Amino acid sequence: MALWDGRFEGGPAAEMQAFSESLGVDLQMFEQDIDGSLAHVRMLSEVGLVSEDERQVIADGLEAVRGELRSGAYAPDIALEDVHMAVESRLIELVGAVGGKLHTARSRNDQVATDMRLWLKLHMGHLDAAFAALLTSLLDRVESDGRTLIPGFTHLQRGQPIWLGHHLLAYAWMIHRDRQRLADALKRVDQSPLGACAMAGTPHPIDRDRSCELLGFASPIENAMDAVASRDHVHEVAAVCAIAATHLSRMAEELVLWSTPEFGVVRMGEGYSTGSSIMPQKRNPDAAELVRGKTGRVYGGLQALLTMVKGLPLAYNRDLQEDREQLFDAVHTTAACARISAGMWRTLTVNDAYTARLEGDFSLATELADYLAAKGLPFRDAHHVSGSLVKWCEDRGGNFKLLTLDVLREHSPLFDEDVFGWLIPTAAVERRTSRGGTAWSEVTRQVALLRETLADA
Amino acid sequence: MALWDGRFEGGPAAEMQAFSESLGVDLQMFEQDIDGSLAHVRMLSEVGLVSEDERQVIADGLEAVRGELRSGAYAPDIALEDVHMAVESRLIELVGAVGGKLHTARSRNDQVATDMRLWLKLHMGHLDAAFAALLTSLLDRVESDGRTLIPGFTHLQRGQPIWLGHHLLAYAWMIHRDRQRLADALKRVDQSPLGACAMAGTPHPIDRDRSCELLGFASPIENAMDAVASRDHVHEVAAVCAIAATHLSRMAEELVLWSTPEFGVVRMGEGYSTGSSIMPQKRNPDAAELVRGKTGRVYGGLQALLTMVKGLPLAYNRDLQEDREQLFDAVHTTAACARISAGMWRTLTVNDAYTARLEGDFSLATELADYLAAKGLPFRDAHHVSGSLVKWCEDRGGNFKLLTLDVLREHSPLFDEDVFGWLIPTAAVERRTSRGGTAWSEVTRQVALLRETLADA
Amino acid sequence: MALWDGRFEGGPAAEMQAFSESLGVDLQMFEQDIDGSLAHVRMLSEVGLVSEDERQVIADGLEAVRGELRSGAYAPDIALEDVHMAVESRLIELVGAVGGKLHTARSRNDQVATDMRLWLKLHMGHLDAAFAALLTSLLDRVESDGRTLIPGFTHLQRGQPIWLGHHLLAYAWMIHRDRQRLADALKRVDQSPLGACAMAGTPHPIDRDRSCELLGFASPIENAMDAVASRDHVHEVAAVCAIAATHLSRMAEELVLWSTPEFGVVRMGEGYSTGSSIMPQKRNPDAAELVRGKTGRVYGGLQALLTMVKGLPLAYNRDLQEDREQLFDAVHTTAACARISAGMWRTLTVNDAYTARLEGDFSLATELADYLAAKGLPFRDAHHVSGSLVKWCEDRGGNFKLLTLDVLREHSPLFDEDVFGWLIPTAAVERRTSRGGTAWSEVTRQVALLRETLADA
Amino acid sequence: MALWDGRFEGGPAAEMQAFSESLGVDLQMFEQDIDGSLAHVRMLSEVGLVSEDERQVIADGLEAVRGELRSGAYAPDIALEDVHMAVESRLIELVGAVGGKLHTARSRNDQVATDMRLWLKLHMGHLDAAFAALLTSLLDRVESDGRTLIPGFTHLQRGQPIWLGHHLLAYAWMIHRDRQRLADALKRVDQSPLGACAMAGTPHPIDRDRSCELLGFASPIENAMDAVASRDHVHEVAAVCAIAATHLSRMAEELVLWSTPEFGVVRMGEGYSTGSSIMPQKRNPDAAELVRGKTGRVYGGLQALLTMVKGLPLAYNRDLQEDREQLFDAVHTTAACARISAGMWRTLTVNDAYTARLEGDFSLATELADYLAAKGLPFRDAHHVSGSLVKWCEDRGGNFKLLTLDVLREHSPLFDEDVFGWLIPTAAVERRTSRGGTAWSEVTRQVALLRETLADA
Repeated sequence: MALWDGRFEGGPAAEMQAFSESLGVDLQMFEQDIDGSLAHVRMLSEVGLVSEDERQVIADGLEAVRGELRSGAYAPDIALEDVHMAVESRLIELVGAVGGKLHTARSRNDQVATDMRLWLKLHMGHLDAAFAALLTSLLDRVESDGRTLIPGFTHLQRGQPIWLGHHLLAYAWMIHRDRQRLADALKRVDQSPLGACAMAGTPHPIDRDRSCELLGFASPIENAMDAVASRDHVHEVAAVCAIAATHLSRMAEELVLWSTPEFGVVRMGEGYSTGSSIMPQKRNPDAAELVRGKTGRVYGGLQALLTMVKGLPLAYNRDLQEDREQLFDAVHTTAACARISAGMWRTLTVNDAYTARLEGDFSLATELADYLAAKGLPFRDAHHVSGSLVKWCEDRGGNFKLLTLDVLREHSPLFDEDVFGWLIPTAAVERRTSRGGTAWSEVTRQVALLRETLADA
Repeated sequence: MALWDGRFEGGPAAEMQAFSESLGVDLQMFEQDIDGSLAHVRMLSEVGLVSEDERQVIADGLEAVRGELRSGAYAPDIALEDVHMAVESRLIELVGAVGGKLHTARSRNDQVATDMRLWLKLHMGHLDAAFAALLTSLLDRVESDGRTLIPGFTHLQRGQPIWLGHHLLAYAWMIHRDRQRLADALKRVDQSPLGACAMAGTPHPIDRDRSCELLGFASPIENAMDAVASRDHVHEVAAVCAIAATHLSRMAEELVLWSTPEFGVVRMGEGYSTGSSIMPQKRNPDAAELVRGKTGRVYGGLQALLTMVKGLPLAYNRDLQEDREQLFDAVHTTAACARISAGMWRTLTVNDAYTARLEGDFSLATELADYLAAKGLPFRDAHHVSGSLVKWCEDRGGNFKLLTLDVLREHSPLFDEDVFGWLIPTAAVERRTSRGGTAWSEVTRQVALLRETLADA
Repeated sequence: MALWDGRFEGGPAAEMQAFSESLGVDLQMFEQDIDGSLAHVRMLSEVGLVSEDERQVIADGLEAVRGELRSGAYAPDIALEDVHMAVESRLIELVGAVGGKLHTARSRNDQVATDMRLWLKLHMGHLDAAFAALLTSLLDRVESDGRTLIPGFTHLQRGQPIWLGHHLLAYAWMIHRDRQRLADALKRVDQSPLGACAMAGTPHPIDRDRSCELLGFASPIENAMDAVASRDHVHEVAAVCAIAATHLSRMAEELVLWSTPEFGVVRMGEGYSTGSSIMPQKRNPDAAELVRGKTGRVYGGLQALLTMVKGLPLAYNRDLQEDREQLFDAVHTTAACARISAGMWRTLTVNDAYTARLEGDFSLATELADYLAAKGLPFRDAHHVSGSLVKWCEDRGGNFKLLTLDVLREHSPLFDEDVFGWLIPTAAVERRTSRGGTAWSEVTRQVALLRETLADA
Repeated sequence: MALWDGRFEGGPAAEMQAFSESLGVDLQMFEQDIDGSLAHVRMLSEVGLVSEDERQVIADGLEAVRGELRSGAYAPDIALEDVHMAVESRLIELVGAVGGKLHTARSRNDQVATDMRLWLKLHMGHLDAAFAALLTSLLDRVESDGRTLIPGFTHLQRGQPIWLGHHLLAYAWMIHRDRQRLADALKRVDQSPLGACAMAGTPHPIDRDRSCELLGFASPIENAMDAVASRDHVHEVAAVCAIAATHLSRMAEELVLWSTPEFGVVRMGEGYSTGSSIMPQKRNPDAAELVRGKTGRVYGGLQALLTMVKGLPLAYNRDLQEDREQLFDAVHTTAACARISAGMWRTLTVNDAYTARLEGDFSLATELADYLAAKGLPFRDAHHVSGSLVKWCEDRGGNFKLLTLDVLREHSPLFDEDVFGWLIPTAAVERRTSRGGTAWSEVTRQVALLRETLADA
C-alpha cells in the first residue's frame, strides 16, 4: 500500500510541521520574549547561577537577536516551532554554549505564559487608549451637538423627546464601564509566571520576586502549576472585548439607522463612509457596518478560547497553543473598532431632523399624564386620560396640535392653560431634571463626571 | 382562505400570548419587585408625591400581595404578561385606585432593571458562597491528602513528580480568581436604575439617591437611558460564570480520569457517583461528568445573551425580555456545579497510586539535568546528558533503577554518589522550594494565604 | 469540622439527586419510550426470547403505564432518575417479574437514543409544518401586496426600486432551503439504534431490522457503539434551527424597521403587537422583537450542544444527558418563532409608503447608466455619466425631476426623449425581466415554483 | 480642538482603509473571480451585449491579469479594496476602455457571491478528500489491528470487552455522515448567483442559464435578492465543519488517553508526535492535542458567521465582508485536522494492552447476566445474580477468576459448566453477532459497506 510506504514518512512530517508551528503568530511577541529573558538572566546572575560576565554576554546576545528580528535580518525557520526556540537558538549561534545557561530554571511553559502577559499588558493599554479616544469623541459630540432634539426610542418607535446628548451619554457610560472592566482584568493579568518552570518550580535558588520586579509585574503568581496551566486571564480579556464589541455594535446599528434618509439624524463623514460611484451624494455607512459585522468575530473568539480549555487537564497541553491567535485577534479587532467608532463620531454631521416632526407628536403623551399626576391624579388614571386624548386626535386624523383647552377639559377638568407649555418638545425635555434625566443640566453634569475619569488616566 | 378569516383572529392572539409572556420566569423576582416598590413609594412619600397615609396603604397592600404570592394564594394570570403588572394589578384590586399612585415617576423599564439587579445581588452572593465552599473543600483536601505523590502531567504524559496538594492548589487559585471576578462584577451590578423611568427621567421632584439608599445599592446609575437599555452587567456575570465553569470542567475531567482503574488516584464518594446495578464495585463519576457536560450550557447562555444585544438600538426593545431565563440559568447552573464539585472533593478517597510507579521513572529525568546544571554545566548541555541516560536505560528495557555511578560517569564526569539522592521521587518534590514550587512548605504557605481570603468574607 | 461530619452525608446525596435527575425533561418523551418498548417486546416475542403470552402481558402493562402518565395518575418519583426507569419500574409494579424480561437485549443507552430519534422525527415534522405555514403566508402576502413599490436597500440606503414581492420572495427561498436542510437532516435522524444495547450488541438472537421496521425507522444504525455514542444528528438539527433562526431574525429586523413611522411600509396586526396604554395608536412590534431576541437562545443552544460533546470519549458518558433540554428548546423555539412570523405576515397591513418618495429619487441612477449601456457605452463610462447627473441635480438642491433633455445631452449625446420613460420607478422595476429580476412576471413565476414545493409535502 | 481640525482628515482615512479592505483575504479567490468574469463576458457576447472581438480582447486581458497575479508580477494596491476591483482595474489598464464593458449587467454583489460559491465548490472537494483519507486510514487500521481486545468504555470505566475495530468503526460511520452532510450542503452551494446584479436583476437581455452552465453550477438562483443577500449556505458549510470537528476532537481525546502509559493502547508515530529532548522515549501526542484544541476555533467561526448575519436587513450590507475570513479558516482548519488525523491513524502502533487485564475482569459481568437470561431468567433478575457474584468476588479481593461452579450455583442453579466459556473475553466479544455488534463478522461486514462508499466517489 502506498499509504504505508516508508518513503511516505517525509510527507506527513512536513504536513505536521505546518500544522503545528505557531511561529508566525508567536513572532508578534518577540520583544516580550527577549525582555523576559533579559530579566531572567539578570536574576540568575544576582543569585549566582550565572556569573556577571556570562550575563553580559547573554544580554548582549539577546539585544543582537532583537536587532536582527526588528530589521528582518534574522527570519527564523519554521522548524524552530516557536518564538522561544527561535530566540534561544539564534542566541547560542551568536554567543556559543554559554547561551545554554539562559534556560536554567525556566521552561517554555513559563516563558510563553510570561510573554503573553507582557504582550497583554502592552495591548490592554492600547485598547484602553482606544476606548478613551471613543469616550472623548462622544463627549466632544455631546458638547457640540448634544442639544439636538430627537425622540428617545423604545421598540424603535418614538417614545419621548430627548436631547441627543442624553442618548450619547448612555453610550459614554457603557464605554466607561468597558474601561473599568479592562482595569479589573489587568489586576489578574499583571502577575509574573516566570520561574514556575515546567509546572513544579525548581531546585535552583532563584528569586521570582526579583524577575517579577524587573519585568514590572505587580506580583508573582503563587502556584507554579497555576502559572503555566491557567488561561482564565485570557478568557477574561476576551470577555471584556466581547462586551465592548456589543456596545460598539449597538452604536454602529444606530449610525446605520440614523444615516438613512428616513431617519436623517446624521450624515457620515467622508473618511468613514463610502460613496457610490454612481450616486455621489450617497454616504454608505460602511465603517459602521464593518464595526457591527466584526462583533461576531469577537464573540467567536471568546467561544473559541473557552471551548479550547473546556475539560482540559493540568498542566500544559498543546491545545493551549491556539490561544494566541484568537486572543490577539480579539484585542486588535476591538481596539480597531473602537478607534474607527471614535473617528465616525468625530467626523459625522448632525442634522436637526426632528424638531419639526416632534411638534404635537404623540410621543408627548407622557407629558399630559405627568401634568395630571403632578396635579394629584393617580398616575394610572392620568395615563388613561392621556390615552383618550391621543385617540381623540387620531380619530380626527391629526396630532396634539388639534387640542384646545375645551377639548382637554372635556377629558379632565384638571387641565389649565399652562398645559400647552408642557407640550412644547424642548420644554418637555428640559423639565426632566431628575438625576440622570434628559435635561441639559443633567447632561452637562455627566459630561463633567466622565471628563474627570479621562483626566485620571 | 381560512387563514385570512376574521374568526382566525382569536387563534394567533392566543399563540402570541404564550410566546410573549415572561411571567413564569419573572415570578422568580417577585420579592425583588415588591422590595423595589416599597422603596419607591417611601421615597415618593418623603418628597411629597404621595401622602404618608397613601404610602401606608400601598405598603400594606404590597406586603399582602407578597404574602399571597409566597403562599400561592395568588397565582397571576398569564394575560398580565410580567411580574410588575401581576403585582400592581393585584395591589389595585386590594387597595383601590390609590394603588395607581405607585407608578408615579417610574416605568416598567426601570422597574425590571431594578428587579434584576436586586436578584443578581442576592444570587451573586449565593454563587460566591458556592465558590467559597469549593475552595474550602479543596484546601481541606490539600491538608488531609495533599502529601500524596502523583506525576505532574503535561500532554497527559508524566512530567515531574509533585505533591497532589500542589496540583489542587492550582485549582484553588483559579477559584479564588473566580471570586475576585465576581466581586468586580458586583461593583457594576450594585447600582440603582430606579427613577430612570422609561429612559428620560421624570419632571416629578423625586429623590433617586433616597430610593437607592433604601434598596441598599451603592449608588444611582447616572444616566436614565443607560439605566434601562444596558445589559453589560448581565454579560459580565454570565462571563464570570463561563470562566468558572471552565475551571469546574477541568477539575471534573481530572476526576473522571483519576477515577479510572488505569490512573487510580481517587475513588469517588458514594453520594457523588452512581454504581452499576450489575457491577456493584463500580463507581461511575456521574457528578463529574454532569459538571463537565453543563459547561456547554453556560457557554451557550453567554453566547445567547451577547447575541441578544448585538446591534440593538437604545433604549428598551422587547428582545431584552429574553435575558432573565438565560442569566438565571447560568448563575444557578454554575452555583450548582460549584457546590457539587465541593461535595465531590469532600467525599472522595485518595489512593496512593503512584509512589511505586514513580520509582526510577523517566519523569525524574529533569532531576539529572538540574543536578548537572547545579554543578555548572550549561542547562542545555545538562539536558542533553540526561536525555542520553534515558536512552541508555530504555535500550536495556529498564528505567533509572538500572543506573550505577559508573554508568552515570560515562555520560558525565560531574556525577557523584549524591546523585542517587536526587532520584528519590519525594526528594525531587521537596527540593522544589522556589516560590510557588511543589515543596510541601510552599503548599502550606499557599493554604494559609487562601484561608485568609476565606476569612475576609 | 462540620463539613466532614458523617451526618452531613445525607445532604450531599439530596443535592446530587436534584443535580443529576433528568426526569422532568425526559418525561416529554414518555410516549416514545413506550412505543420503543412495545416494538422491542414484539420483536423479542417474534424471535422467541419472550413468549407471546409474556409479550401480551408486557404490552398491556405498557399501555396501562401510558394511560397513567397521560392522565397524571402516575407521577414518577425523582429518585427513578429518568423516563426509562420510570416506565419500567411502574410496569413491573403492574405486571410483576415478567416485566423484567422487557429489558432483555437492550440497555438504557440504546433506549434513550431511540426515544430521542422518535421524538425528533415527530417534532421535525412540526417544525417543517411551521416553516411551511410561514412560506405560505409569505406567498399569500406576495400575491396580495407584492406589487407595492419599495426601494431595494443596500447598506440600508435606497438602492433601486423593486416590488415588495421580489423582496419577500428572497425570504421565501431561504425558508424553502430551511425545509430542504431539515429533510436532509431527517435522513440521518431516521435510523434505529434499538438493539445496540450498551455499545457492543448482544449475544441474543434479536432482529434489529424488525424493531426498526415496527418503529417506522428507515434503517438500523450499522454500528452499536456509533448508535449510542453519536450525537451528530442532534448537532445537525440544532444547526438547521440556528440557520433558520437567522432568517427569522432578518425578517423580524425588517418588520421592526418597516413599522416605524420613518419607514412606514407596514403596520403590524393587533394580534402580534402591543399597544401602549398611553398611546393607543402605537403598534409596538413586540412579536418581531421577540423573534429577533430569541435568535441568541438558538445559537446558544447549538454552542451548548457542540461544547458538550467536544473531546468526549466513546461510548456513553453522563455529559450526554444534557442534550435533551437544549435540543428540545432549540426545536420548540424555532418552530414557535416560525409560527409567530407566519402570523405577523398574515395579519399586518402594507402601506404604499414609497411611490411618492421614489419619484425622481437618486435610486433611479442605475437606470440612466443602463440606458446608456444599452446604447453601447461601456458600462463604466455610463456609470460615470449617471454619477455626474446626480451631482448636477444635487448641486441644485433637487433630484432627477430637475432633468431636461438639454441637461441630459450636455452630459451625453446618447440621451433621447425615451430616457424619461426609464425614470418612471414602476417602469424601472418592470424592465428587470432577467431571470430572478424584480419584474412582476418573475415574481409570479417564483410564487408558482414555491407553491409546488408546498404541494409536494 | 485638534480633533476637529480639518488637517486631521488624512489620518482617519488611512485608518479606515486598513480597517475596511478585504483584499488580503479576497485574493484567495482571484482564480474564481477571473473564471466568473470569463463566463460572464462569453455570455454577454452570445446575447450580443459585447461583440465577439470585444469578448476576445477582454478574455485575453483577464488571462493576462491571471498570469500576473499567479506570478506575483501584479500586486494590487490596498486602495482597490477588493479582488473584483483589483482585477477589473488592471484589466482596463491592459486593454483600455473596452474593459469597462465587462461590468455590464452585473455588480460586485453578484460577483462576490459567485466567487465564494466557486471557491466553496473547490474547497468542499478538498475537504471531502480529507474526510475520505481519514475514513480510509481508519478502515485500514481496522483491518490491520482491529482484532485487538480493548474494553468498551462508559463513563471512561470499563464496560464490556470489544474489538478495537468495533470502536474505530463508530468513528468511521461518523466521518461517513460528515461526508453525507457535505454532499447535502453542496446542493445548496452549487447554484449560480451571476446576473442577479445589485439585487434586482437587469434590463439587459442576459442569459443567466448560460453563465451558470459555463461555470459548472447546477442551476441559477431563482431570486436576485436572495442571490446576493443570503449566507445560509455559508452557515451550513461552517456547521458541517463544526460537527466534523467535534468528531475529530473525540478521536483526538482518545488518542491522548490511549497513548498514556496508564492506558497504553497506542504509541503515536514519530511524524505526529513530539519527543521531549530530555526524555527521548516520550511521545507527546501533540498532533492529537492540536486537533482537539482547534475545535474551539471552528465552533467560534460558526458562531461568528451566525452572529454576523443575525438581524441583518436585505440586501447587501458591508457586514457580510467578514464572511470570507471566518469561512475560509473553518474549511481549511477542518480539512487540515482531518488530514492530520488520517496521518496519526496511519502511523501509530497498536499495543495489546488489555488481553491480560481483561481476564476475569468485572467488565464480563454482563456475560453472566446474558447467560442466565438466555436460560430464561428475566433479565432484571439475571442482572441481580450477576451483581451479587461481582460482590462475592470483590469481598474476597479478587475478580471472576475466583469463581467455581459451586460458587456460581450457590447464586443460581441455572449455571452449568459451559458458563466458563462465556467468561473468556474474546468469546464474549465474538458472541455479540447481533447486527452492529462487536463480533468480527460484523466488523468486516461494515468495513465492506464503508469501502463501497469510498469507491463511489
